[in-house]
Amino acid sequence: MTEPTLEFIREAHARIRGHIRRTPVLTSTRLDGLCGSRLFFKCENLQKTGAFKARGALNAVLSLSDKEARRGVATHSSGNHAAALAWAAGLRGILAFVVMPRTASPFKMAAVERYGGKIVLCEPTHRAREEAADRVVAQTGASLVHPFDDPRVIAGQGTAALEFLEDQPDLDAVVCPVGGGGLLSGTAIVARALRPGIRVLAGEPEGAADASLSLSAGARRPVEDPASVADGLLATIGRVTFPIIRREVEAIATVSDDEIRAAVRRLLEIMKIAVEPSGAVGYAAVESGRLKVSAARVGIILSGGNIDLDRAPWAG
Amino acid sequence: MTEPTLEFIREAHARIRGHIRRTPVLTSTRLDGLCGSRLFFKCENLQKTGAFKARGALNAVLSLSDKEARRGVATHSSGNHAAALAWAAGLRGILAFVVMPRTASPFKMAAVERYGGKIVLCEPTHRAREEAADRVVAQTGASLVHPFDDPRVIAGQGTAALEFLEDQPDLDAVVCPVGGGGLLSGTAIVARALRPGIRVLAGEPEGAADASLSLSAGARRPVEDPASVADGLLATIGRVTFPIIRREVEAIATVSDDEIRAAVRRLLEIMKIAVEPSGAVGYAAVESGRLKVSAARVGIILSGGNIDLDRAPWAG
Repeated sequence: MTEPTLEFIREAHARIRGHIRRTPVLTSTRLDGLCGSRLFFKCENLQKTGAFKARGALNAVLSLSDKEARRGVATHSSGNHAAALAWAAGLRGILAFVVMPRTASPFKMAAVERYGGKIVLCEPTHRAREEAADRVVAQTGASLVHPFDDPRVIAGQGTAALEFLEDQPDLDAVVCPVGGGGLLSGTAIVARALRPGIRVLAGEPEGAADASLSLSAGARRPVEDPASVADGLLATIGRVTFPIIRREVEAIATVSDDEIRAAVRRLLEIMKIAVEPSGAVGYAAVESGRLKVSAARVGIILSGGNIDLDRAPWAG
Repeated sequence: MTEPTLEFIREAHARIRGHIRRTPVLTSTRLDGLCGSRLFFKCENLQKTGAFKARGALNAVLSLSDKEARRGVATHSSGNHAAALAWAAGLRGILAFVVMPRTASPFKMAAVERYGGKIVLCEPTHRAREEAADRVVAQTGASLVHPFDDPRVIAGQGTAALEFLEDQPDLDAVVCPVGGGGLLSGTAIVARALRPGIRVLAGEPEGAADASLSLSAGARRPVEDPASVADGLLATIGRVTFPIIRREVEAIATVSDDEIRAAVRRLLEIMKIAVEPSGAVGYAAVESGRLKVSAARVGIILSGGNIDLDRAPWAG
């Protein structure tokens, strides 16, 4: 598959902008003081469906031909992408089939159902999920929308950076979380095209550090049994996203679960916003000092806000 | 003391706008569905110091003559007003003396100290607080800045509604919490002057329902031993604020602590923002159905976001 260009991302923005939120960019004097930089937070936790995933999913859904669309869409991701795809499908009036392991949290299932997604349960193994998704596609003719390794999805995710740099054109660096790399690669394409000198940086959970490993090795290096409180970032960096990241991203820092929890708590206590652990990993990398960004104007994408309050993820 | 006019409030806005945040107005399709109205949330929880109180305190501090200012300011309120006054005094480079009961929470003391306020401890009775404040004023010549019963403070609080109606000129109703009535009276003056047909409504905790009692009685009716999870709304409606509220406010609904907690949780879970119990009382009155606002465009002021996370006030 081909890499999305800035132009392709601009087209995605024109396609989705009437349906998504132009999320605010917030600042905090106290967090600036804590981190030693001027920080600008692009609040995708305030996005429709509670995460940037709405952008990519909607761009993919709106890119389908009428004939394709009629058969619906499908995915076997169980997190924010699944809810976003269900939401996007609902906007176009088509079905979304979401394959989820039967062990998925009721919190995540509820999000998919809220937007009218059809949940297809399967055994909690990677193989069972892929097989179930193949079966759904074979039976329904639905279009599979990958959570990150799809140029339409990457382009949609890149629209957050488009808005961010429109609002704050003079950022010296932009930081986001990385899981499969959809947000990071889309951000990198936009940021480096609009502002070639900008530093593109990312944070990644220690327990799922395949992206930073891959960046060091120069080739994709999955890790076995990834685990982190940032449960949205456990995916392996993609085939489409990795070459973009390798070319455009300066550094990926890993952060511990405790650092992620501290970041979630700080954002809630000081910025007064709910950011889920996965969404706070970019900020955690800055606050912990694992990314060196001092004395610069740093843009941080807070990528999602879907916190299960019964679990209080800042409490550890 | 005279009532602030719209013009006086516009002057206050010109005085403070360079230092405060123009807080965003957020919306939520899900909360609209839950409440049966189109809701617009003015997010003063995202204001400097975490509450609208920054507006009134700063207007009061910046209204002092140089001679007055040199002697500092004082207050015997221990909540968000105290932190806001310390912050405002810091901006002008003057001292703020804050009389607090020795039983005040470390969370509240920390906020005052963070902004450089001088804490003067006293016994936890109303009388001891007033005496301590009088002593501070006598010794230092500091200007007492009342948390609500002061036209400069009311005018500052009214600037939130000024911004709100600039951003959303066609609101049918505006709702906010009421404690001493500074925010409500400032909001009422602005809203009814700019949009005479607008309904001005408020929510109040059941356990501190003096404002609604006073409205029914046509005269101020303090309640004994007010108590609520909304600890910022325990004050008795003021001498300056009450006549304004009596003239301009259509209804004040009381809400239970459980309804307030539910509102805090909903705002955190769905809107992804931290609103403290006191700040969520206007929304609680709408969500609970205690204020009838259906089928209208309803502006809700979320007045503060200083949550002590160790207490998790949505958990009850």
